[in-house]
Amino acid sequence: MAASTNSFLVGNQTQIPSLKPKPISQSFLHLTKPTTTTTRTKPVSIRCASTATVGSDPRVTNFAAGPAALPENVLLRAQSELYNWRGSGMSVMEMSHRGKEFLSIIQKAESDLRQLLQIPSEYSVLFLQGGATTQFAALPLNLCKPDDPVDYVVTGSWGDKAFKEAQKYCDPKVVWSGKAEKYTKVPSFDGFEQNPDAKYLHICANETIHGVEFKDYPVPKNPNGFLIADMSSNFCSKPVDVSKFGVIYAGAQKNVGPSGVTIVIIRKDLIGNARDVTPVMLDYKIHDENSSLYNTPPCFGIYMCGLVFDDLLAQGGLEEVEKKNQRKAKILYDAIDESRGFFRCPVEKSVRSLMNVPFTLEKPELEAEFIKEAAKEKMVQLKGHRSVGGMRASIYNAMPLAGVEKLVAFMKEFQARHA
Amino acid sequence: MAASTNSFLVGNQTQIPSLKPKPISQSFLHLTKPTTTTTRTKPVSIRCASTATVGSDPRVTNFAAGPAALPENVLLRAQSELYNWRGSGMSVMEMSHRGKEFLSIIQKAESDLRQLLQIPSEYSVLFLQGGATTQFAALPLNLCKPDDPVDYVVTGSWGDKAFKEAQKYCDPKVVWSGKAEKYTKVPSFDGFEQNPDAKYLHICANETIHGVEFKDYPVPKNPNGFLIADMSSNFCSKPVDVSKFGVIYAGAQKNVGPSGVTIVIIRKDLIGNARDVTPVMLDYKIHDENSSLYNTPPCFGIYMCGLVFDDLLAQGGLEEVEKKNQRKAKILYDAIDESRGFFRCPVEKSVRSLMNVPFTLEKPELEAEFIKEAAKEKMVQLKGHRSVGGMRASIYNAMPLAGVEKLVAFMKEFQARHA
Repeated sequence: MAASTNSFLVGNQTQIPSLKPKPISQSFLHLTKPTTTTTRTKPVSIRCASTATVGSDPRVTNFAAGPAALPENVLLRAQSELYNWRGSGMSVMEMSHRGKEFLSIIQKAESDLRQLLQIPSEYSVLFLQGGATTQFAALPLNLCKPDDPVDYVVTGSWGDKAFKEAQKYCDPKVVWSGKAEKYTKVPSFDGFEQNPDAKYLHICANETIHGVEFKDYPVPKNPNGFLIADMSSNFCSKPVDVSKFGVIYAGAQKNVGPSGVTIVIIRKDLIGNARDVTPVMLDYKIHDENSSLYNTPPCFGIYMCGLVFDDLLAQGGLEEVEKKNQRKAKILYDAIDESRGFFRCPVEKSVRSLMNVPFTLEKPELEAEFIKEAAKEKMVQLKGHRSVGGMRASIYNAMPLAGVEKLVAFMKEFQARHA
Repeated sequence: MAASTNSFLVGNQTQIPSLKPKPISQSFLHLTKPTTTTTRTKPVSIRCASTATVGSDPRVTNFAAGPAALPENVLLRAQSELYNWRGSGMSVMEMSHRGKEFLSIIQKAESDLRQLLQIPSEYSVLFLQGGATTQFAALPLNLCKPDDPVDYVVTGSWGDKAFKEAQKYCDPKVVWSGKAEKYTKVPSFDGFEQNPDAKYLHICANETIHGVEFKDYPVPKNPNGFLIADMSSNFCSKPVDVSKFGVIYAGAQKNVGPSGVTIVIIRKDLIGNARDVTPVMLDYKIHDENSSLYNTPPCFGIYMCGLVFDDLLAQGGLEEVEKKNQRKAKILYDAIDESRGFFRCPVEKSVRSLMNVPFTLEKPELEAEFIKEAAKEKMVQLKGHRSVGGMRASIYNAMPLAGVEKLVAFMKEFQARHA
């Protein structure tokens, strides 16, 4: 992103409130709305410079694991449309989910996602609620009977949670667990024994907490079985051959939108077998038949996902996005590996996540200082998950290269001072 | 709202995108971000007039049943904070749900809601996902055993859906149904037979589709039983004595926020009895123990609800809000009743909803014309629900009196032309 200068008008799409400075706790009832007349007849020209220098940005460099940073152009677009979406006279938050405006939004979101992931026509795309955690129950309730065996490969905390929830509804077995090695590995696919009768094989494609990512995918031993992947933390971060999976599911709040939207991509022939005790909102058939509009969906969240999908396509699609993610991850892992042990990443090199980079310090007593000093430099959310400690830099699609470069520069400078 | 003039600065809180006009379908990747430097050093003064004349508003008058109109000052506040929430350097959509910024948002939202509804300390407030429809299953899964009898008073489609979902999980009985009278009544409380052993008595406090609203609440016959109310479409539209209920639940998307947030107010002693087969995301105990942060909540939606709660308090609380709603409803129902039968509302006068006003025309063949002409006047979403036909004006908290006055004026003018 080179520095550039732009001038623009305060027009219809950008309504500005009159804000009088006051404590947050106070009411803001006195806010009044501008009329179009004014903004139409008195356009105001503002010149402003755009720059990639993160330091000059009013915003922080946000390494949060999710909810996480969103693309700035997406946020600015959402801001410009929030009060009056594209001349509709309504905010997206005010639209009937059955009106033509919102239908155009959800339909474009789905078709853009289908284009991004090259989703075959025999798969349905569902926009749901409740997070991946709700899917941990929905999967067995829809896809197997109480006594059916199913296999789980557990490479981190999320895979383990998915397994534990499945225990309520079927006969799941952990066919491989990385727990003894503190979740730093992915098994070789012939390194674990699948149940030949397992209805499905479940993996978590990227473990957000431990930074372990599948680079390829195992094939179910049962010829009638299928693979299920929780892709919450690496969804749309790279191309994926959807045809290898029976179900792909993901919470939106890492790579493609705000929290409150869960995307399920499911092979159509797997839909329609929910048990009688399945809550109607967990029945894939209900959502598929109603195009995700059985009840009121999380409309604004779906709209935000749609803006992100549009942005990912504009970047050249997931091949280009993956290249950017690989470059970002490489400079960070290189900085760790070339620190002569000052920084350490416990994850086996071949399966290190492009999205979540956990690392520790040779001198653990310096970790709090590292996080504190980084925050002073406006680099936030670098603390590791409470269950593993250390540091974690989540560098999802929306993290600019400049943000990672800033972190790496800080790491080297920190090491120079404390080595 | 009198016309007033305000001048204000484009400051830190209002980031403006550079928008070049182009087809929506095209990418907007070239959008660039303003730097604070510019907005700090080059404040732009804009004069604009605020007026209550709905006609001069760039926005429509939105009678949608939900998602529905939101208060304009809330939308403008959200717009001003979307790119950089109160100097945090992040959008609310980008914040870790465990960070201090979002914790301050959800905690203020809860405390403001507790103040609005005077919620006793022995009740928990949960911010969940999945809509009221998810609660239709969560209620029996958490509150009774498979063979427990429970009673449902069915005054419309939503109460009926709640009953049907409960059939999966316990032994529900419809103790009264208004179906034969097309859901136009609420029974007198001694007009139906409760099961003395019923674990709970369920009502839908306001039927969005049929416009039938409870003005008082029945008392469970079982001394150990409790009352449950779906208040989705009249939540926070008037004061409610929470202590009369075991559980109050509501989707946010009518009166208090965008879709994607479901609020559950539940007496603490009722929490902790979920069955083993309850999906973890439907277990009230899990959400209560984790202060609605067991997994990632719908953060932006909760933030929006918080802005609405703040606004309702600023209006003087629910007593004042109810007065406004009564006035709005009165002029609309009066216009119908004084039309000498040209307009008709089928609902029994004593239980007409303050929120959803269904009406028909003496000459049904004019209804399409009525809706079409109203839309030309920028009054939208007046079509009745597909299951009942006719018209419906939803006039939730955020509908200004001026909006209802505009509709009434149009109705009289329309009648004059077609009577």
